[in-house]
Amino acid sequence: MTADEFREHGHALIDWIARYWETVEGHDIQPDIEPGEIRRRLPGDAPESPEPFSQVMADLDEVVMDGLTHWQSPGWFGFFPANASFPSILGELAAAGLGQQGMMWSTSPVATEIESHVLDWLVDLLGLPDAWKTSGTGGGVIQMSASDSTHTALVVAREVAALRGNAVDRLVAYSSEEAHSSIEKGARVAGYQHLRLVEVDESYAIDPQALEAAVEADSNRGLVPAFVCSTIGTTGTTAVDPLKPVSSIAERAGAWHHVDAAYGGSAMICPEFRHLQDGVELVDSYTFNPHKWMFTNFDCNVFYLRDRRALIDALSILPPYLRNRPSESGQVIDYRDWHVPLGRRFRALKLWFVLRSYGAEGIRHHIREHVRLAGDLEQRLRQDGRFEIVAPTTFAMVSFRHFDGDEATESLAGSINASGTSYVTSSRVSGRAFIRVAVGQTHTVDRHVDRLWSVIEEAA
Amino acid sequence: MTADEFREHGHALIDWIARYWETVEGHDIQPDIEPGEIRRRLPGDAPESPEPFSQVMADLDEVVMDGLTHWQSPGWFGFFPANASFPSILGELAAAGLGQQGMMWSTSPVATEIESHVLDWLVDLLGLPDAWKTSGTGGGVIQMSASDSTHTALVVAREVAALRGNAVDRLVAYSSEEAHSSIEKGARVAGYQHLRLVEVDESYAIDPQALEAAVEADSNRGLVPAFVCSTIGTTGTTAVDPLKPVSSIAERAGAWHHVDAAYGGSAMICPEFRHLQDGVELVDSYTFNPHKWMFTNFDCNVFYLRDRRALIDALSILPPYLRNRPSESGQVIDYRDWHVPLGRRFRALKLWFVLRSYGAEGIRHHIREHVRLAGDLEQRLRQDGRFEIVAPTTFAMVSFRHFDGDEATESLAGSINASGTSYVTSSRVSGRAFIRVAVGQTHTVDRHVDRLWSVIEEAA
Repeated sequence: MTADEFREHGHALIDWIARYWETVEGHDIQPDIEPGEIRRRLPGDAPESPEPFSQVMADLDEVVMDGLTHWQSPGWFGFFPANASFPSILGELAAAGLGQQGMMWSTSPVATEIESHVLDWLVDLLGLPDAWKTSGTGGGVIQMSASDSTHTALVVAREVAALRGNAVDRLVAYSSEEAHSSIEKGARVAGYQHLRLVEVDESYAIDPQALEAAVEADSNRGLVPAFVCSTIGTTGTTAVDPLKPVSSIAERAGAWHHVDAAYGGSAMICPEFRHLQDGVELVDSYTFNPHKWMFTNFDCNVFYLRDRRALIDALSILPPYLRNRPSESGQVIDYRDWHVPLGRRFRALKLWFVLRSYGAEGIRHHIREHVRLAGDLEQRLRQDGRFEIVAPTTFAMVSFRHFDGDEATESLAGSINASGTSYVTSSRVSGRAFIRVAVGQTHTVDRHVDRLWSVIEEAA
Repeated sequence: MTADEFREHGHALIDWIARYWETVEGHDIQPDIEPGEIRRRLPGDAPESPEPFSQVMADLDEVVMDGLTHWQSPGWFGFFPANASFPSILGELAAAGLGQQGMMWSTSPVATEIESHVLDWLVDLLGLPDAWKTSGTGGGVIQMSASDSTHTALVVAREVAALRGNAVDRLVAYSSEEAHSSIEKGARVAGYQHLRLVEVDESYAIDPQALEAAVEADSNRGLVPAFVCSTIGTTGTTAVDPLKPVSSIAERAGAWHHVDAAYGGSAMICPEFRHLQDGVELVDSYTFNPHKWMFTNFDCNVFYLRDRRALIDALSILPPYLRNRPSESGQVIDYRDWHVPLGRRFRALKLWFVLRSYGAEGIRHHIREHVRLAGDLEQRLRQDGRFEIVAPTTFAMVSFRHFDGDEATESLAGSINASGTSYVTSSRVSGRAFIRVAVGQTHTVDRHVDRLWSVIEEAA
């Protein structure tokens, strides 16, 4: 493909994407497709000769479109959002076009410095501690997913415990029973053999007394509490664990305190939510996902450390082919030492594009709108009389169930999703079924929630 | 940004990228910039109000351009290539535009099935065992980097050993002393406490007798050999470890045998290289990087398993909010169980675009051209009389040093890089300095190697 052909096909693809976003609302959100159906439309072997790009583009309509789950539909209320936006798509395009490999400062000074800078901006925007800036003792790094950041925090906590002479088979990790599955997965991957899923209170937040009792019981048995994870916005019901009491328990036990704010972190750009992270200056690490609720397409997870030294000590390895003068000067950040992979692309570019294109006020506006829409829906559900609100609507997710029980609730979720226009996730909490409605796709406005409400009313 | 504004800015950005690739050769490859210089040009705070996108685009020229290390320059011979291409950039753009989140089949059937399909294609294209296809016992998955795949293999090996009752503090991992730093990093992250860097032969490949002796010594001490990594194309000198003898040592010891073909794997699309992976059907896992030498922009690493069951058993966790009928049917692949992260974007799209746009013959042609260019350079170096070839030019990388010793060699590397037009990496092997010239940027042709040769001749 020549540069001129790239111009031609690139323009066509940009137009195709614009058209996709203009029409995405018209697609059934879940594709009507059986396992294997996409593969059956593809040739058994890779092409020996080049195909014209027009043919590749045609398959976007003829093959790809039929197998998409439309996460970018404004009727998307499933899981948590993975909201993208036009500025973000352009940021990803620019990063791909520049083909940087930012493993070290010297292999891409601009990818490194824009990443540091934008993550420092976010410290201020989210009301996080000044010390977490690169000018302080801490710093932030972009990773692929909150699972990666949580796994990394578990590894650092393990290494800190090891320096104190504690074998891994005696270490214990803690989170609430409502914490994300990435804690269990990360702990398993990092080799922990003890994980306590601590009970929650009536708001589904961790019960600090139960945590304290678990920590004490383990210590008395000769085990070593090494890692505690608090969540700001659990996946089940967006519950918020209280950071201050958890921090003081973790500190007394000598355990690393990590915060999973994958979903809730974005809301902190609005000061009215910051009381939910009261005590955040006491924690050791923190992760949130601009790729969930900050209009930045997956992947863009942020991992902050209060003290970057512990992270770098755990992960730094220096072979001769990576030696270079800027690294040895100690004046630069080499992000390869901040995570498991070595290579990394220029993901800060899309975050920079988004923050500049929306401005802080634009992001606040959209987040507040999503919160308002969720509040409206909760009101309607409460007034209707057939539904029970399962948990507080703290951010922009409503958790409810049908009063007639699990079967009615699950059947309602099925009907909503069968409508094609709206999509929700059904889950379970305390053993009972409920429906999660997460408002947060970039272009979701009143009429999409109205439409969801019509479907709920009719199907219930 | 409206859809129409996205069309306008998207076209402008496509044109900007086309122009960048047309002119990249004119830039000094390494930027002339001090640490902190990019950050000083950025405002201290994020903008409160939206900025026009034209201003963001302008900063690509005014800020970004000055801090780029030009990995996509055809004069790039540093590290290994991270070669991108126009079809790949368009694939990344399409993936960003569609905003899929392919953690499970049901959350993006098309992202899942195209990934499985294209990785099955590659099994045939690279001459890998049929059993590694999804129709067999194995399967492939796209990860971010070879470091991730190697780390994952180390975790699976650790879990396999644990099922046999072996504590992690007794496990031993092995690779050659010339293996990539990701083995040491992955072993540390996965909690291994014993890593043996086995000595190499005169071609810098692992010495199987030394490996066998190390395995025996460890077994006799009551340790448990759990993981052996062979490399096809070491980072230092592109040495190739012999898979057959290593496999039989690993098998006798009950250890997992992983192959790091991060660089060398792409060459296997040319049958004349396949003798270098003789015995590959005996190994347990294998990783290679289309984002190094297959024209697919970072990130696109491939991880193959001979038996996917061991991987899924090690990593699968099923919380209630991820339950769904297709997953429970067992008929689908949920790639979330194939790696540490949960979320994942539609990276298979760019690989699909590249394979179709180049065709297998196109990729073979470019790889053979790079190999020929490296061979030509080696000839010139040999004939000149001032240089020593350090290791065989097995693929497209030439390793050489100045006969006058380390200082002359390092000073030569400095002169090459100071030229601005060519970029190489200096490293050390057996304690002595040498220069690595890795030919592999997408658009590198004779004149770029000629220019490098002129710089070498003059500076030497």
